[in-house]
Amino acid sequence: MTVSELSEAELVARIRTRLQPPPDWLAVGIGDDAAVVAPERNRLEVLSVDALVEGVHFDRRFTPPDAIGHRALAVNLSDLAAMGAAPRLALLSLALPSTLACEDFDAIVAGLAALAARYRLHLVGGNLTRSPGPLVIDVTVVGTAKRRQVMTRGGARAGDELYVSGTLGAAAAGLQMLTARSQADGSADARREAAGGCARRYLYPEPRVRLGLLLARNRAASACMDLSDGLADGVHQIAAASGVGAVIDAEALPIDPEARRWFEARPPGDHPDPLLQAVTGGDDYELLFAVRPRLRRRLQAAGQHGQVPFTRVGVCTSGGAVLLRRGAGATATEQPMPPGYRHFR
Amino acid sequence: MTVSELSEAELVARIRTRLQPPPDWLAVGIGDDAAVVAPERNRLEVLSVDALVEGVHFDRRFTPPDAIGHRALAVNLSDLAAMGAAPRLALLSLALPSTLACEDFDAIVAGLAALAARYRLHLVGGNLTRSPGPLVIDVTVVGTAKRRQVMTRGGARAGDELYVSGTLGAAAAGLQMLTARSQADGSADARREAAGGCARRYLYPEPRVRLGLLLARNRAASACMDLSDGLADGVHQIAAASGVGAVIDAEALPIDPEARRWFEARPPGDHPDPLLQAVTGGDDYELLFAVRPRLRRRLQAAGQHGQVPFTRVGVCTSGGAVLLRRGAGATATEQPMPPGYRHFR
Repeated sequence: MTVSELSEAELVARIRTRLQPPPDWLAVGIGDDAAVVAPERNRLEVLSVDALVEGVHFDRRFTPPDAIGHRALAVNLSDLAAMGAAPRLALLSLALPSTLACEDFDAIVAGLAALAARYRLHLVGGNLTRSPGPLVIDVTVVGTAKRRQVMTRGGARAGDELYVSGTLGAAAAGLQMLTARSQADGSADARREAAGGCARRYLYPEPRVRLGLLLARNRAASACMDLSDGLADGVHQIAAASGVGAVIDAEALPIDPEARRWFEARPPGDHPDPLLQAVTGGDDYELLFAVRPRLRRRLQAAGQHGQVPFTRVGVCTSGGAVLLRRGAGATATEQPMPPGYRHFR
Repeated sequence: MTVSELSEAELVARIRTRLQPPPDWLAVGIGDDAAVVAPERNRLEVLSVDALVEGVHFDRRFTPPDAIGHRALAVNLSDLAAMGAAPRLALLSLALPSTLACEDFDAIVAGLAALAARYRLHLVGGNLTRSPGPLVIDVTVVGTAKRRQVMTRGGARAGDELYVSGTLGAAAAGLQMLTARSQADGSADARREAAGGCARRYLYPEPRVRLGLLLARNRAASACMDLSDGLADGVHQIAAASGVGAVIDAEALPIDPEARRWFEARPPGDHPDPLLQAVTGGDDYELLFAVRPRLRRRLQAAGQHGQVPFTRVGVCTSGGAVLLRRGAGATATEQPMPPGYRHFR
């Protein structure tokens, strides 16, 4: 059975069954012209929207439908994490090809709902429509933060040290692995295989919500953003927003070991250099943040409570240049940091 | 020049130039991982999202790009109006075909920005991505309302009278006119002709924000919704949410005169009956609302301050049936109200 055989009301009913009980701040939920909520006292609101478009952000041949739902919410939670905000609510807008199977529709919603439940985020409304082309999933999230704890990209100063959470390159390698496996199989069943390691990191990214909250709460970070478009893009963005330069130490980068092996074994392509593949590859959804050296102790406190490790990878400088330093000591060389992933050009 | 020749940053810059100066409640606007806003004191927040998909909700052959932007925001403002909420902010998510001309991109944004400025709504953030298929424009709006003034679909009681604002059928007739003209021309230039009357009502719907606010403020309406999917759908929805039936008087319906002439002149099709075309045609974005008879004076007060007229079209009943009464007196007949427009089935 496909979604085109159901009415909008029937599809909405299938979503409702997957939701947690409504929180007390929700005055009007799904089913009216709009949702009505009571704002949280003494908090600012943090809003973000992100869309995943089939054929651009995911390939249904190797992306299980629950991963589509998971990723659509995860990329938004990652934006909240980067601002230091606690997730609160979401709106889901879906444009569905009429050939989409109802079980796939259910799985998309289940993937999103499972991640929402883990972060106590409530789905308060949305929109359903047909698509004559790709599946499009658009998620809007609202979180909250205390005024003095909001992190932006613009607060770094020369001398601040740059840190990155988790590891880099796993999602980019995972996408390459899934693509290669799908082309080798030539079958639509690649997505049914259990994905592990890098493939899993691509399909089910884990937003760094807890780390973002800890950094915000003890005001350890002077600037923060998430690495949706890769480390290179992130460093450029923080440098531009803060009016500083940066030097990243290539040897210090926490490149995922499986990803490194994969990149090293690939035939030369656009980025024959494994390091540059890890630096420019997107979809890791780690946090990149700047810390004043004198606040290092606050950062350590955040590290003891968070579940994800972080690594010092560079420093902000007073010039405008954004550089990648390779090698160490007298033989070290510096090259311009490559640009990040470009959505259009 | 097409959007594919510009970077995301360059497209965002083109949007920024069309925005009003940021309001004082906006702590972080476009350009960071998320927007940050201070909530309004002692108000509830009203949230809605709606998507317009090319090939489903508009045809670029006869929909000028500024109308795409206008409609995408208007349909959301209409949802806020139906709840009695004052517009506050919006997020814009666009999935763009790489062949879209930059001047069309600018016009889409200009159409949305012009409507936003009229309602003092501020665009605080969004998302831009490529689309391998149709143009998709997804708008999220947030408005505010006092707790005791929020209108829902569920408050009508038997005996409440049903009213509709403005006129019905104009947008549905306008869409038919534009489609017919486009097919006759066989050219992409149909959209360049100045559209008036019904065509204009389809292309540039006017959300009933002011009327919604007046109805909410003096608590005249027991239930309210907007007619995005036509009057028939609206009456069914209010009846179901309120647990009542309804009888609509066909002779009382304020059908747009130009639309009536158009429907009467059409060859018989799915809905050969001009009345039923006006009743089931969507896209009018008028308000349908219920009023207790003893509160009629409050309604008149709202009518004196609002710029749009409204018409009593029926009454809520204690049965569950939703009926359309045709003719008057002894010769009157009642038939079941047809279903509204269906997005899927």
